[in-house]
Amino acid sequence: MSGRPREPTVLLTGASGRVGRAILGRLGDTYDWRLVDREPPTGETEHIYLVADVTDSEAMVEAMADVDVVVHLAGDPRPEAPWDSVLANNIDGTQTVLDAAATAGVEKFVFASSNHAVGGYETDERTPGMYRSDDDFDLDGTELPRPSNFYGVSKATGETLSRYYHDEHDMSVICLRIGNLTENHPPEDYERGQAMWLSHRDCAQLFERAIEADYDYEIVYGISDNDRKYYSLEGAREVLGYEPEDNSAEY
Amino acid sequence: MSGRPREPTVLLTGASGRVGRAILGRLGDTYDWRLVDREPPTGETEHIYLVADVTDSEAMVEAMADVDVVVHLAGDPRPEAPWDSVLANNIDGTQTVLDAAATAGVEKFVFASSNHAVGGYETDERTPGMYRSDDDFDLDGTELPRPSNFYGVSKATGETLSRYYHDEHDMSVICLRIGNLTENHPPEDYERGQAMWLSHRDCAQLFERAIEADYDYEIVYGISDNDRKYYSLEGAREVLGYEPEDNSAEY
Repeated sequence: MSGRPREPTVLLTGASGRVGRAILGRLGDTYDWRLVDREPPTGETEHIYLVADVTDSEAMVEAMADVDVVVHLAGDPRPEAPWDSVLANNIDGTQTVLDAAATAGVEKFVFASSNHAVGGYETDERTPGMYRSDDDFDLDGTELPRPSNFYGVSKATGETLSRYYHDEHDMSVICLRIGNLTENHPPEDYERGQAMWLSHRDCAQLFERAIEADYDYEIVYGISDNDRKYYSLEGAREVLGYEPEDNSAEY
Repeated sequence: MSGRPREPTVLLTGASGRVGRAILGRLGDTYDWRLVDREPPTGETEHIYLVADVTDSEAMVEAMADVDVVVHLAGDPRPEAPWDSVLANNIDGTQTVLDAAATAGVEKFVFASSNHAVGGYETDERTPGMYRSDDDFDLDGTELPRPSNFYGVSKATGETLSRYYHDEHDMSVICLRIGNLTENHPPEDYERGQAMWLSHRDCAQLFERAIEADYDYEIVYGISDNDRKYYSLEGAREVLGYEPEDNSAEY
């Protein structure tokens, strides 16, 4: 018997999307990954890779075998996505993945929510002041959803669905409201994007902590430690032990 | 020209359901009603009655002509309704009705939400104590959704969707989290039902106030003034001027 603890088996949906690639780029060797995407892999992959749609209930049930943790990223990622697409891919898809996970007895579920679930707080009166470091308007994850588009509605619904699955099936759930993920450099000439920047390095740490930490049900913000931020990092620090290393102000 | 102000034209979806009949039973002569239900009327009706499904976008757009206020009740009303039914009838249906209303420039939207949107707060630890009048646990509409079933998920999603339509289209929206509606008498031998009882008389007053009052976007509880209540009536009193006349303790 090996003295090394077994790596958790982590199912990653939407593995070939932007967030999925950011996670695998830094944590590809850390876990026993099972990748799911509706697109086939573009290059070689050393992991089990299932080409399937997250609305395919049978495929999701099969994908859950021996899985310890689900990281659910899949969905239409476009802020301007039309209602019919987010209804099917994001809302129905998230229910399908949650249900398969609960049925399989998966113990931990990491849901990629989004800043767009609360984008409606960025009113004409508050902006652009709230994107600046001298402004003290703050959201901390206890506020009601206030989406700025149908994509945001779908993410808020995923949070509510996962609250139900947590309560009903005793599954640990964390909803990460992801900011603006870019590689190497924060967005330029875009105050909002700088306020909610998430570096690749911090993104990987955030998901690693979400896979490792213990929690019941939580909604936290996932961004770098930006001077301009209006999302509190207290939740992610306290619940996950997340310690971001980047700050858009340093670029 | 008549000196009497024109009655508002109110579109009522789900008109033949339990809540619809309670409203029409007392307010049938008060407004210029346009009734919508997917079932044909069982008896004679003096109002315009459209047999249509709320997921039928074209029918909903047509139904909105000259409408001042929408009261949206339609949906699968079963707490045990399966996911596929609430996804189509309640979630997609509510988006379809909201979208048609916004397109037509409707100024006020009354959404029948439900106690099931927050039923998950009734944990094993809190019940049955919270159903009793000496308990001080209270929900006031600012808490995050915590549904106890898929029906509750669908109602929470309707609240979030209507928040988006309010912000985007400047439509006044009130979400009424309806309790346990019964005629004549509160539920017997059912503490939870007594705590959230809504009499027919108070139900009619609640919807009349929702049709008449001015507001931006609000979530309030709609129950009678029951000794056992754990839903605050402050929101409905302040926003709508609702003054319930019944109390399940008096039976």
